[in-house]
Amino acid sequence: MSTRREQGPPGLEPIADGTLLSVPGLHGAGVACGLKEPGERDLAVVVADAPRTAVAVTTRSELAAAPVRLLRRRLATRPRVRTVVVNAGYANALTGARGMRDAEAMTEQAAVCCGPPAAVLSTGVIGVPLPMDRVQAGIERAGRRLSRGTGLDVARAMMTTDTRPKTCAVAVTPPDGAGDGFTVGGVAKGSGMIHPDLGTMLAVVATDAEVTPAALDPVLRRAVDRSFHEISVDGDTSTNDTVLLLAGGAGGEPLGQGDPRLEAVGAGVTAVCRQLAREIVLDGEGVSRVMDLRVTGARSQGEARRVAGVIACSPLVKTALAGGDPNWGRILAAAGRAGVALDEGRLSLTLGHHEVYAGGPRPVDEAALEREFAAAEVGVVLDLGAGAGEARMLTTDLTERYIQINAEYRT
Amino acid sequence: MSTRREQGPPGLEPIADGTLLSVPGLHGAGVACGLKEPGERDLAVVVADAPRTAVAVTTRSELAAAPVRLLRRRLATRPRVRTVVVNAGYANALTGARGMRDAEAMTEQAAVCCGPPAAVLSTGVIGVPLPMDRVQAGIERAGRRLSRGTGLDVARAMMTTDTRPKTCAVAVTPPDGAGDGFTVGGVAKGSGMIHPDLGTMLAVVATDAEVTPAALDPVLRRAVDRSFHEISVDGDTSTNDTVLLLAGGAGGEPLGQGDPRLEAVGAGVTAVCRQLAREIVLDGEGVSRVMDLRVTGARSQGEARRVAGVIACSPLVKTALAGGDPNWGRILAAAGRAGVALDEGRLSLTLGHHEVYAGGPRPVDEAALEREFAAAEVGVVLDLGAGAGEARMLTTDLTERYIQINAEYRT
Repeated sequence: MSTRREQGPPGLEPIADGTLLSVPGLHGAGVACGLKEPGERDLAVVVADAPRTAVAVTTRSELAAAPVRLLRRRLATRPRVRTVVVNAGYANALTGARGMRDAEAMTEQAAVCCGPPAAVLSTGVIGVPLPMDRVQAGIERAGRRLSRGTGLDVARAMMTTDTRPKTCAVAVTPPDGAGDGFTVGGVAKGSGMIHPDLGTMLAVVATDAEVTPAALDPVLRRAVDRSFHEISVDGDTSTNDTVLLLAGGAGGEPLGQGDPRLEAVGAGVTAVCRQLAREIVLDGEGVSRVMDLRVTGARSQGEARRVAGVIACSPLVKTALAGGDPNWGRILAAAGRAGVALDEGRLSLTLGHHEVYAGGPRPVDEAALEREFAAAEVGVVLDLGAGAGEARMLTTDLTERYIQINAEYRT
Repeated sequence: MSTRREQGPPGLEPIADGTLLSVPGLHGAGVACGLKEPGERDLAVVVADAPRTAVAVTTRSELAAAPVRLLRRRLATRPRVRTVVVNAGYANALTGARGMRDAEAMTEQAAVCCGPPAAVLSTGVIGVPLPMDRVQAGIERAGRRLSRGTGLDVARAMMTTDTRPKTCAVAVTPPDGAGDGFTVGGVAKGSGMIHPDLGTMLAVVATDAEVTPAALDPVLRRAVDRSFHEISVDGDTSTNDTVLLLAGGAGGEPLGQGDPRLEAVGAGVTAVCRQLAREIVLDGEGVSRVMDLRVTGARSQGEARRVAGVIACSPLVKTALAGGDPNWGRILAAAGRAGVALDEGRLSLTLGHHEVYAGGPRPVDEAALEREFAAAEVGVVLDLGAGAGEARMLTTDLTERYIQINAEYRT
């Protein structure tokens, strides 16, 4: 796991070439069953040696896909998962009554093949029913290959427009050095970064630490809040977005709230999610530059997020970033339509190391500003001068390549 | 005025080669004063032979430009305008305390040169102060050319990334044939269609009908609601968006609410605004195809607008349109994140003449559907099956050319 920019907290150590399967007790495989191009891996199975405590964060879309609705229902009654199936190519979203029957059939088959309880995640084209014969053959084949599969196979089988697999792991050392350490590993797919769609973002994260279900849920919510929610936009979710977290296998008393070892495990989950989120942005469709945007001085975190979200999604901001053009008026204009009260006399805006606006335009060294704005990663800070609310958003530029990818995706 | 698709109501007759200056009593000129490229017209002045009743609809941005704030303040105390100045090149937005001083100075000069009261509209780059010496020379020069200026000169001087001038006029015949007719003319600029910015959309509309201020305001609001609001997105406004309506000159008793002649004039104002709005879309940056989207069956008009707005702005919908790919899952996925409760079992979606979804995917003739979706204009109807709320939105595709234009706009 690369920690090039993110310095992990003490007690976390990236595992070289780590994957989801670096977590003890997990096995997995990725196979090709004809859901993508012939020969491309498109179905993954991950199996724990026994059922794990499981929690999930899922899409806020009103049109959640059948597998998402099934997962929510099952976890609500029994937060345990042993087998996870992920298929690419078909989102099984907006597929009518048949969609739920197919999701249930996949779940039952996975439970029988690899061990119950099973969960299913799907990603791909919306509105086209799953070719169930191929899916079922794929689950069976993957189940037989668990002893030979690798974490990279799993990551590759989840990809749609992604250009590279995204998986990593960290070793967690408990704060006082007392007791054995834990491992946290994860895998994700996602590449469409603007108004994600196509069942865009999926992640499976696991740790061998034993954690009570009540304590595990806030661990995941905090991690998602500081990772995947900082690369997407408030309310901007697809039909299939899901982050699933499994915990257990190390044995011993489950960690509960307030346990310092749980804090350490939580930090590991956050670090893995942040790394995966960052990889999703860097692999964004057609991306040539990214913007690390911070909005500070808002009246609340919610308002900061709203402003950051509108800026991060503005095509005019994104095209200016693509052109390396520090056209900061576009950033402020986007902020102005976020539905958050602003006072232009109290705003300040800094691009890289240049304060370009502070209650009014500021004199800047244009040549130096342009050089900095043309870098692969640009830091932008907008202070609203109204309070202590903050938000952060890592966003992409919008390039001709993005258009090419998305105008031709399905055909 | 082309009425290719919009059949005007009876009593309205397009005026061939009509412009804003087709309205009796209006004069205008457009001059080049060095705000755009050398020699390009960039400042327009329109002057009525006497002060007119004036109302305006302006941006909802929290960071409204200085000229917009000044216009609001003046119309609030006295709804009269005789001279309108429009400059392109500089939006005079986010220009600090100096911005208001400059807007006031332009207004005073225009009043002295051409007759009070004066109003100023600006469009162009945000955050860069106006070069006032050039602006003032331009106002003076335009004022001297009023007898020789044309409506096309005025329209050209307002353009920024527009590729063609946008102006038209209609003749209004009162319903019972009693009394003389009226004229309604208008001019607009606007070309950035996605998350408009850069002081994107300006329009000046006028009629010679005498109308009371109280009756004129709802006429403009209704017209904007059925035109410019149907090509933009709820809440998605720039720092400078303004539609200004002037009325008067024909003499006689002012028309008040309930007068059937006022209805006819209102229909004329709506027709002119719809035509200008349509021209803005067709001249959208990099546009190759447009989508005429209707959302029906919503619980309210507001919910219908929200759903239509999210679909119309979705980069994935827009890129599918660019590629001529009838990937309808993207349309429904966008609807799903509009924050409006939806029941996928009650939705139906029709692209062109093909119902592709009705509670679930429908079998379609894919080849015929693709042919229809590759047309220059595609009709899309999404029915939410929940009520009687409706909204309409004419939107553009998102092409590589859009990126080229906006990645290079300022540099």
